[in-house]
Amino acid sequence: MYKLYEYPPSGNSYKVKLLLTQLGRPFEAIPVDILKGESRTPEFYAKNPNGRIPILELDDGRTLSESTAILWFLADGSQFLPDDAWLRAKVLQWLAFEQYSLEPNVATARFWLKYAGKSQEELGERLKIWREAGAAALALLDEALGTTRFLVNDQYSIADICLFAYTHVAEDGGFSLLHHANILSWIERVRSQSDFVPMVTRWP
Amino acid sequence: MYKLYEYPPSGNSYKVKLLLTQLGRPFEAIPVDILKGESRTPEFYAKNPNGRIPILELDDGRTLSESTAILWFLADGSQFLPDDAWLRAKVLQWLAFEQYSLEPNVATARFWLKYAGKSQEELGERLKIWREAGAAALALLDEALGTTRFLVNDQYSIADICLFAYTHVAEDGGFSLLHHANILSWIERVRSQSDFVPMVTRWP
Repeated sequence: MYKLYEYPPSGNSYKVKLLLTQLGRPFEAIPVDILKGESRTPEFYAKNPNGRIPILELDDGRTLSESTAILWFLADGSQFLPDDAWLRAKVLQWLAFEQYSLEPNVATARFWLKYAGKSQEELGERLKIWREAGAAALALLDEALGTTRFLVNDQYSIADICLFAYTHVAEDGGFSLLHHANILSWIERVRSQSDFVPMVTRWP
Repeated sequence: MYKLYEYPPSGNSYKVKLLLTQLGRPFEAIPVDILKGESRTPEFYAKNPNGRIPILELDDGRTLSESTAILWFLADGSQFLPDDAWLRAKVLQWLAFEQYSLEPNVATARFWLKYAGKSQEELGERLKIWREAGAAALALLDEALGTTRFLVNDQYSIADICLFAYTHVAEDGGFSLLHHANILSWIERVRSQSDFVPMVTRWP
């Protein structure tokens, strides 16, 4: 059975958990309290030298990090990742966009404000940069969802799982979704998928 | 024939150019001067709403952005991306690591200092953050290269192409490679691959 090392309120962890659940794959979730330094131990670095969750561990002990790589590995061959080369490229384009343009801004603002307990004043200029770049990423997503029900080929895929994770809790980082009607209706479509499970937002 | 919209000194553009060359695929390179706002025009946004290079354009006008997605799309089925599911996951882990932990620090410091002409003083606290995080990413890469000639399965792949692009010019951003002997010897191994082409570092 797979092991998933996760920080429960992390969207990157949640993406993997949602996909595993929708694939019907049993897994053992192992919480890692990153605020208590549990991802900075020799044992954790042996599993991921980059010291980040999530990590997927196979039965033979091999480990895979980076949520993008884990999603791709798990979804390949399933209904959550198309077979067509161009559609696969478009899914990966969305996964890369999320990790470069959305997550470092939307998720980072959320983490420091809601989980690490920093004030807006303490974050200062950095928060301003995250807010501007994160708002631009959300606006792009909203525009893309104006012409399609799901991000790639109108079919629910790991692109939707990936973008959903931090977008649907963007308000935790101070981002408003009120004027992003396309995102709001897509969030409801994602939530209505079979075997959907919600994200843990309070922990421990 | 493929069109590649690129900013010539960009490592993200160079990755694609190096792969296309090593695949023996002819392409038309179309320079985009991002410092002159050429990636902020309606025509450019129509090709990539995120306003970023590189973009790969097919003969029928379809466009793909995000260097990770472009590399994957082009390399799939070639010697530069393994067939085995686990090895593919490891390649994607490296591509995701590069875009999340290395490029936003090593490439960003290089861009602002060398191409946008900012001083260290102007960049201030941001430069300090890039330097610390970039140095950590380079140290991780050096350690990984201590036990293998190339990043995945000891075979040259898009993981090496991707990590090589900004690592081999990291000194432009103020990062020292002097104590990273594994990186230095790997750089020479990458340079000795068939059909290797160097990166453009002065432009126009």
